[in-house]
Amino acid sequence: MTYIYPELNSSQINTLVNEINHYSLSNGLVMYKDLENLKNETAVAPVTLYPTILPKKSFEKAVAIQKAYNELYANILLDNTNWLDTVIKSISEFDADFTGKLYELYLKYQNDTTYKKQNKELGIFRNDFLLHENKDKTYDLKEVEFNTISVSFGALSTKVSALHSFLHESGYYKGEVKSSFDERNLEVPVSDSLANIASSIKYGVDTFETQQNIKNTIVLFVVQPNERNVFDQRLIEYELFNKYKIKAKRITIDEVEGKINKKQDSYLYYNDDVISLVYFRSCYSPNDFQSEKSWNNRLFLETSLAIKTPTLKMQLAGSKKIQQLVSSPEILEKFISDKETSNNLLNTFVKIHPLDDSAEGKYAKELINQNDSKVLDNFVLKPQREGGGNNIYKSDIYPFLKENIPDEKEWAGYILMELINAQPTKGNTILRNNQLYNVDILSELGIFGTVLIDTDTKKIEYNSYDGWLLRSKLSDSNEGGVAAGFGCVDSIALV
Amino acid sequence: MTYIYPELNSSQINTLVNEINHYSLSNGLVMYKDLENLKNETAVAPVTLYPTILPKKSFEKAVAIQKAYNELYANILLDNTNWLDTVIKSISEFDADFTGKLYELYLKYQNDTTYKKQNKELGIFRNDFLLHENKDKTYDLKEVEFNTISVSFGALSTKVSALHSFLHESGYYKGEVKSSFDERNLEVPVSDSLANIASSIKYGVDTFETQQNIKNTIVLFVVQPNERNVFDQRLIEYELFNKYKIKAKRITIDEVEGKINKKQDSYLYYNDDVISLVYFRSCYSPNDFQSEKSWNNRLFLETSLAIKTPTLKMQLAGSKKIQQLVSSPEILEKFISDKETSNNLLNTFVKIHPLDDSAEGKYAKELINQNDSKVLDNFVLKPQREGGGNNIYKSDIYPFLKENIPDEKEWAGYILMELINAQPTKGNTILRNNQLYNVDILSELGIFGTVLIDTDTKKIEYNSYDGWLLRSKLSDSNEGGVAAGFGCVDSIALV
Repeated sequence: MTYIYPELNSSQINTLVNEINHYSLSNGLVMYKDLENLKNETAVAPVTLYPTILPKKSFEKAVAIQKAYNELYANILLDNTNWLDTVIKSISEFDADFTGKLYELYLKYQNDTTYKKQNKELGIFRNDFLLHENKDKTYDLKEVEFNTISVSFGALSTKVSALHSFLHESGYYKGEVKSSFDERNLEVPVSDSLANIASSIKYGVDTFETQQNIKNTIVLFVVQPNERNVFDQRLIEYELFNKYKIKAKRITIDEVEGKINKKQDSYLYYNDDVISLVYFRSCYSPNDFQSEKSWNNRLFLETSLAIKTPTLKMQLAGSKKIQQLVSSPEILEKFISDKETSNNLLNTFVKIHPLDDSAEGKYAKELINQNDSKVLDNFVLKPQREGGGNNIYKSDIYPFLKENIPDEKEWAGYILMELINAQPTKGNTILRNNQLYNVDILSELGIFGTVLIDTDTKKIEYNSYDGWLLRSKLSDSNEGGVAAGFGCVDSIALV
Repeated sequence: MTYIYPELNSSQINTLVNEINHYSLSNGLVMYKDLENLKNETAVAPVTLYPTILPKKSFEKAVAIQKAYNELYANILLDNTNWLDTVIKSISEFDADFTGKLYELYLKYQNDTTYKKQNKELGIFRNDFLLHENKDKTYDLKEVEFNTISVSFGALSTKVSALHSFLHESGYYKGEVKSSFDERNLEVPVSDSLANIASSIKYGVDTFETQQNIKNTIVLFVVQPNERNVFDQRLIEYELFNKYKIKAKRITIDEVEGKINKKQDSYLYYNDDVISLVYFRSCYSPNDFQSEKSWNNRLFLETSLAIKTPTLKMQLAGSKKIQQLVSSPEILEKFISDKETSNNLLNTFVKIHPLDDSAEGKYAKELINQNDSKVLDNFVLKPQREGGGNNIYKSDIYPFLKENIPDEKEWAGYILMELINAQPTKGNTILRNNQLYNVDILSELGIFGTVLIDTDTKKIEYNSYDGWLLRSKLSDSNEGGVAAGFGCVDSIALV
């Protein structure tokens, strides 16, 4: 695929950058510049000058399959056979400090008889894909990971795609030489993720209010302290208020004790307001739990009648181990009975090997121990637990395991995943802190989706596709958190 | 009137300020911090912590009378008797450098036979009021001035009122002691000015496109270079694009030559796009015309088929002299025949004296020359021309005239206006560059309105009320431009 990005002269680039700055500052496409400066000054969020071009067919496939993914994870949670519990128990042994602690909380929650339990669970998910180039130069979107907690950039994705659409339609992408952006069939869509995520949260609030026959409840956003990406969260809150008059409060997990009360009715209260929904934009990494108090607070929220987005169990269902297991057709058919649907799902999976004592696990460990760079260059090693920044790539895999985890039994805390052959995009440019970076980028497509399940009736009550996100990073950087500082928010142009 | 503003403790104030910062940065309620830093960093616009409380009755009167004001100025422009031309000619003699130059351009435009003339004129107005306290402690809104060009803060007014509404409804105004904000009948409305001004501009575009049987025209924003308040303008542009797919371009008056072409059809072109509407957010003060080229460019725009918002004639109709003349019942009835309407208008006028050779003018000059502070303390001296920052108050009037304008004949360039007895608000707080100012403030209410007139048929084709604005300033500062640095955007709470 060779797409041609606009070649603008320096005066056109200056105009374009000025347009991006004005649009971003007018529309909340912003981020705090650094953690020391969380006051009233912000910078334009890191963005690309142009939306990145994607084949329309691949994009539409990813959108079309989101509800099947939602259904898969919903069915894993609704399953009667204890399958999920068994899997989580097994992996919690290899990640005692985090997965193990979450599992421990989950067991405490299950055994708690003091408070009434909520049978509704709301999941706001994001499924991340890379565009894989096949040997025959055709393309398929392949799943990187399925996120079940704290999925971010839903709001900024709407903003950056609206920015790119504005720039494209206003003619700011017209250079002196013809580019792909001059073609009539090129579309620059706007992601509805901000509106859709707010609408999903409203669905959760309505569900609680109907169930409890109560009105004017509020949403609790559990957030990290010193969040640079706070505007991505606040925009959802303002959307809830402006469209639905639903109010929200923000606290960190450590502020729960003192600010949140639970009464005999098992309701959570913020002052006099009943909390219908606890929406986690935190609690997904070990760093979010600074002390035993943090863990206790997390359990305190779980053992309440408020709907949790997500519950501990739903969060644990997002483990890489689950992703690895369902990539096997035999396990997948436990949860998705329709043959065509499961085939479609399988087409988006890459090979994922366990590193445990199963036959497949032994095979994969043998693969690593041979330390053949030609083989290992096709793999990435990922920990079971959530949160980026811990992946080990290619030739780093063998020395990493040997040095850090001498006991091969403990390798089971990781999975070995086939690397996706994603090709860098040439010709786009990153704008970051008013500096331009003309670099090759790699882009990851995220698809948002929501389910609301009832664990009593074992039914999926709501299943929706909620928009999309494109994040891009320097193609030579292996990790790409936008807020963390190596990547940027991007959007898509479809051909 | 004693209204009680919330008394928050320091922790509540910190929370409130954090909420204001997040909301403002997420929603474009921003302004460039200083002229040297017009890049990608902004600050929250100067705002009040609380909306300022106004009597609902007075506010509703100001809203209700806007269409009559629109009609008055439309009729002045549509008048067949040459009245306006004569008045402008007379005052242009006393303000040769600005009013005189505008009038000269207007004459050149009138005499130009090269290009086709546009018979539609769009006026986007703002009528500014102060709340006058009568001797019997009743209150009336009194008109300060009627603005016919470059009315600002329509967009930020929507944003700041939405902010105050959000804060009020979210409970951030609940202090430990009961305040007026705890009363059930207190309303914090949101101004529709952003949406309405964009809709008025769309009306102008549609009018041109229907008249010329043409599509996809664009709007030209003529702006000042280095505009700190640029976001107030861009938000209108984004509203036009998002709602109506109408595109706009921004240029300064000095950039017209080089960027704008005019062809035989008298259309204005920006590249290949026909400009249907020229929207002036500049050209209202002498500083906007740095050279003869600026004046030529202004004439170039006027002598085109594009609809001008406003035309030179409409701009000149906003002179203080016109405001003074229509405050006389005999002149007012020339333009407003309905007795009830003209009485309602007269009720909002204060006494305005000319300083010319008429009997009333002689009386007023005598008043000044007596230099009696008890008398002059009730007056403000204003130049005929547009733009703030040039008013002379109270005891400064006599020495100002004596020192600067020794020839009394030239005093006719000014009007002497009765000061409105506006009482300061105590208890509100200004937030500016992250600093809090607990000061008495004076608030000016602006009411937006639009007319579209046809100078051929002599008909008003469109007349609308377009929302409102409240600006507040330190009560001991006589001038209050927000962008200039002494004031802030505020909103209203109605009781």
